[in-house]
Order: sequence, then C-alpha cells, then structure tokens
Amino acid sequence: MTFAPPTIDDIRIASDKLTGRVVRTPLIEAQAASKLLGRRVLAKAEVLQTTGSFKFRGALGFLDRLDPETRLRGIVAFSSGNHAQGAAAAAAVYGVPATVVMPADAPAIKIERTIGWGARVVPYDRATEDREAIAVRIAADEGLTVVPPYDHPWTVAGQGSIGLEIAEQCESIEVDAPVVLAPAGGGGLCAGLALALESALPSAKVFAVEPSGWDDHRLSLAAGKRVPVAEQVDSICDALQTSIPGEVTFPINQRLLSGSLAVTDDEVRHAMRHAFDELKLVVEPGGAVGLAALLAGQVAGTGPVVVVLSGGNVDARLFAEMLGS
Amino acid sequence: MTFAPPTIDDIRIASDKLTGRVVRTPLIEAQAASKLLGRRVLAKAEVLQTTGSFKFRGALGFLDRLDPETRLRGIVAFSSGNHAQGAAAAAAVYGVPATVVMPADAPAIKIERTIGWGARVVPYDRATEDREAIAVRIAADEGLTVVPPYDHPWTVAGQGSIGLEIAEQCESIEVDAPVVLAPAGGGGLCAGLALALESALPSAKVFAVEPSGWDDHRLSLAAGKRVPVAEQVDSICDALQTSIPGEVTFPINQRLLSGSLAVTDDEVRHAMRHAFDELKLVVEPGGAVGLAALLAGQVAGTGPVVVVLSGGNVDARLFAEMLGS
Repeated sequence: MTFAPPTIDDIRIASDKLTGRVVRTPLIEAQAASKLLGRRVLAKAEVLQTTGSFKFRGALGFLDRLDPETRLRGIVAFSSGNHAQGAAAAAAVYGVPATVVMPADAPAIKIERTIGWGARVVPYDRATEDREAIAVRIAADEGLTVVPPYDHPWTVAGQGSIGLEIAEQCESIEVDAPVVLAPAGGGGLCAGLALALESALPSAKVFAVEPSGWDDHRLSLAAGKRVPVAEQVDSICDALQTSIPGEVTFPINQRLLSGSLAVTDDEVRHAMRHAFDELKLVVEPGGAVGLAALLAGQVAGTGPVVVVLSGGNVDARLFAEMLGS
Repeated sequence: MTFAPPTIDDIRIASDKLTGRVVRTPLIEAQAASKLLGRRVLAKAEVLQTTGSFKFRGALGFLDRLDPETRLRGIVAFSSGNHAQGAAAAAAVYGVPATVVMPADAPAIKIERTIGWGARVVPYDRATEDREAIAVRIAADEGLTVVPPYDHPWTVAGQGSIGLEIAEQCESIEVDAPVVLAPAGGGGLCAGLALALESALPSAKVFAVEPSGWDDHRLSLAAGKRVPVAEQVDSICDALQTSIPGEVTFPINQRLLSGSLAVTDDEVRHAMRHAFDELKLVVEPGGAVGLAALLAGQVAGTGPVVVVLSGGNVDARLFAEMLGS
C-alpha cells in the first residue's frame, strides 16, 4: 500500500483529533538562556508529554487513522525507547493489544515502562537479529498492524501537531520569525513540524539538529538525496541513532528545512545541565540537541529561538553522571 | 508600623499586578501518580517560576506595594536560598539595588545565582551571627527596606497569586473539591494559598506539609497557638527549616488549613525520584514534601489532589546522590 505524502490538511485533522488527548505542552521562557545569548529563547517542553516524549503524538495520530476493525486486532512496534512507550500508550488509549519488539539489553526502566502501559514486550538480540523483520513477522502471524516510528504520513501528521501548538503559542506572545531547533533521528518530528509551520507560522526557520557522527540529514541535505552515515559511532543520544533519513520524511525536510546542525556529546551534556539548573526540566540527551546547538553558539542572529526539548526519558545513572561531570 | 492582616482583596490586587510578570506555572496532570493512587493527581509546577521557586511572587508583590521613593533606595533580604533569589530578581525587575545577607557556607551555586540577579551578597557566620540583625542594621545604615521572607501581609498577598491560578486552572479542567498539599516553612505559601482558595475555590481543602522534626505547624495547630519545634534536627529540606510559624501567617493558617502532614527524608527522596522519572521535573527536597506525603499514603480519599511543587533549586551533587540511592 502506498500513501500520499502528508499535507497540512492531514496535520490539521490529526491535531483536531489529538486535542485534549495529548498534552498541550507549555512553551517556556528560557530566561537564563535569553540573558546569556541576548535574544529571546523559548523551550517547547515536550518532556511533559504523555510517555515523556513527542512520540506519543505520532503513534496516537497513526492509530486514529486505522480503520476500527484493524485497530481492534492490535498493533506492533519496534523500538528501544521513546516510540515503544508512545505506541504502547496509544494502544492503551484505544484499549487494544500492543506488542513491542525491544532489544534484550534495553535499559530495564524502558522495558518496565512499556510493560506498564500494558504492552507485551518481545526481546531480540541487537547483534544478530533484525527487529523490523521480527515485528513484520509478528504482525503477519497475528494480524497486527505495525506502527511506524517515523516514516509514514500518518505518523508525520501526528508529530505535526506540535508545530501547530508552537505557532499558536508564538502568536499569543507575539513572537514572529523564530528559528526553531528540533532533534532529528529519522526526521519525523522535523517533517511534521516544518510542514505545520510552513502554513501556520511561515516566518519560522526550522533546523534539524543531530549528534555528531549521526548527521545523515546534514549529509543528505548537502547531497540533495538520502545519504547514510558512513559508520555507526558512539553517541550519548540513544534516541537519534538513525543512519539515514526516512523516505517519507526526507522530501519534506529537503524542501522546508533551513539547514541542519550537529552537536558533540559534551555539548549535549552541557545543555542537559543547563536544563537542570535553569529550566528545572529533565531532558534526555537526544531531546537536548537543539538547546545544545544554541548554547554552543551555532545559531547566528539575534531573533527569537524555539528549542524543542523533545523527550526526557533518561536513565537515572546517566543523568547522575552528567551532573557529576 | 503595623499592618492589617492580608485579605482576598490584597491577593486579587497583587495578582492583577503580577500577571505577565510572574510565570503562570502549568498545572500538570501527574498521570503516573494518578494511576498509582487511583485518583486524579495534579502538580502545580512552580519549579518553572522565575528563580525556580514561588518566593519570587511574594518578593515582587512586596516591592509592588512599596512607595516608589522608598523602593528606589533599594532592598535588603536575608536568606540562604530561594528568598535570596526571589528578592534579588524582584529588585532587578525594578532596577533597584538589592543586598542579600547569606550564610558564608551557603552552596556556591545559590550565592552565584543571587549575584547573577545583580544583588550584593553580604556573608555572615551561621554559627555566631544573627542574619536578621545584620539585615536590619544594613537597612537602617543605608536607608534600605527589608523584604520579609514570609511574615508580612504583602508577601502573603503575593504568594496568594498561586492560589488564584490554581483555582482558575482547576475550574478550566472541571476539578472540584481538591485536596491541596503545600510545603510549609514559615507558612507564607500556605497562608496565601488558603486565603485565595477560601474565596476562589472554597471546596478545596489545604494541608501544610513539613519535614519530620520541623513540624511546628502540626504542633501549633494542635496547641491552638504558635509553638516552636523542640530542637533543630537534620533534614534534607533546607528550604523548610523554620522553627515556628509566622505571626502574620499562623492565624490565617489556623483558621483555614484542614490540617498538616509530616514526611521523612526518605519519603522526600522517593518523591524527588518520582518527579524525575514520571514528571520530568527537577524538584528540590522542600518542594517535594507535598508529593512525598501523597505517595506515602498520607492523604485519605479518592478525590482529586493538587500538589504544589514549590521549588527546584537543588544542588546537583545532592540530586545525583538521590538518583543513586
């Protein structure tokens, strides 16, 4: 089955349906960062979303579009982290069965939380097995629907709801022409956000932010086509380790993004610490890359900046280490 | 000079003036706690307030009431923590000089942040000197006004703005008759909150929550008069170590509180960890006592509960230790 690329209409329909079912997360004045940088900095605190990340928007938006009979049979997802919880929680909204294929060595807390949303967790061996293949097989065997983590028009439309919120929130505080910094793994958040802002706040400039070494959006934007990263390097940003932009997401991002930025692990740790000290928010590494790029001085200009703090699901030990470093 | 006790009119006037100058902090659905306890739990995320605590409300409300000439000469405050930053930031709003008397051994970060708001910090020796006497002397010598941390009608009126917000936010999500749990040191937050809710949400029941061993509100409510704690015990809650309820605040709390609760350090750590894991908020020990009492099963009933997370200014090392414990 092929699907038409998502449009602003898809986003508006998804958003209307998601209203009151996803958290309308606050756009917070980041006072210390504003003072530091001499420009207005706003933080979209998506760490306060149900399941602690934006992934819930896309997963619930996807389930909303399934025909009721198909949805009733249940869903399957593959993820080591935020999408696992997002898909499990979306299934719980509908009271339908969820199966999540997770690495056997995923942090215990992430597995527990996914189970906590009522999902069945199927472990796999990261070194020898292909999680997508497992998910597809389970789906076929059991008549379930795979909920894609990013590369699907319905998922992108759900993520776009964050963009409409940002546009409305910026308007209500008279912020115009902001630079918007959003984390990029597969590019679903960026694509939904950019598509929403294209219509709802066309003066905004959206940048994708990636971990150094996982800068496939940077490479792809430069090449004018989807290019994978050369090798899989270590990164503190577990949520953003996607080797190549999505097929659905990239054409949108290629058309709408103003560019991309990349940040080091140290820059990410610094941003997490800033969020702890100054914003009193728990932000996971992958959720902090936008703030990291901004604090590292990568964003030229003096106009307003919106950083999307996309998730807060960070291991307590890693967070404690970051505080001590 | 004596002042009439604060009234709801004082709170409404203070709130109107504070609107747009203090953060209208979000009332967050605490989904995990709600699930755990089988009742609706809401968190007033006052950690997101300017300076990271509610103290800014009372300090700015106090400065608003000073006559302009007096205010222009500047203010002085004594505090080891949140009120220091609150008073310094309030003075910065008016661009008037601020002096803060702080313990020489206060955490460096708190001193730095107070200086960061433009204040002059005067250190004193906690063991041998009386900080209030120092502040009063400086005020007399230099023609400055002391900004009281809690025991003044204007301060209480400023704190009351949080109660009006809670009332409006509860109404907008159709929450009625909540139990409201608020930390108590000198009782300024509780008094302002209870006074606001008496008029704006009279179905609410407000409880003061204190650290075990610093339960002077419990003792005083039982005795029907202001009673100090017998001895100064160790507590993780540095912000709530006040030996006796305030003279201005206690009559209000005595009339309006439904009771008081006390929590152990371990219960506080558990609540801080819960806020980290489930709410993605950084909450300091003193700010977490309400949530601690709730999670410890101290609040009977099945109706809605609002916990005021009153501050997030916690030392990184202490927070890291809490995560590891």
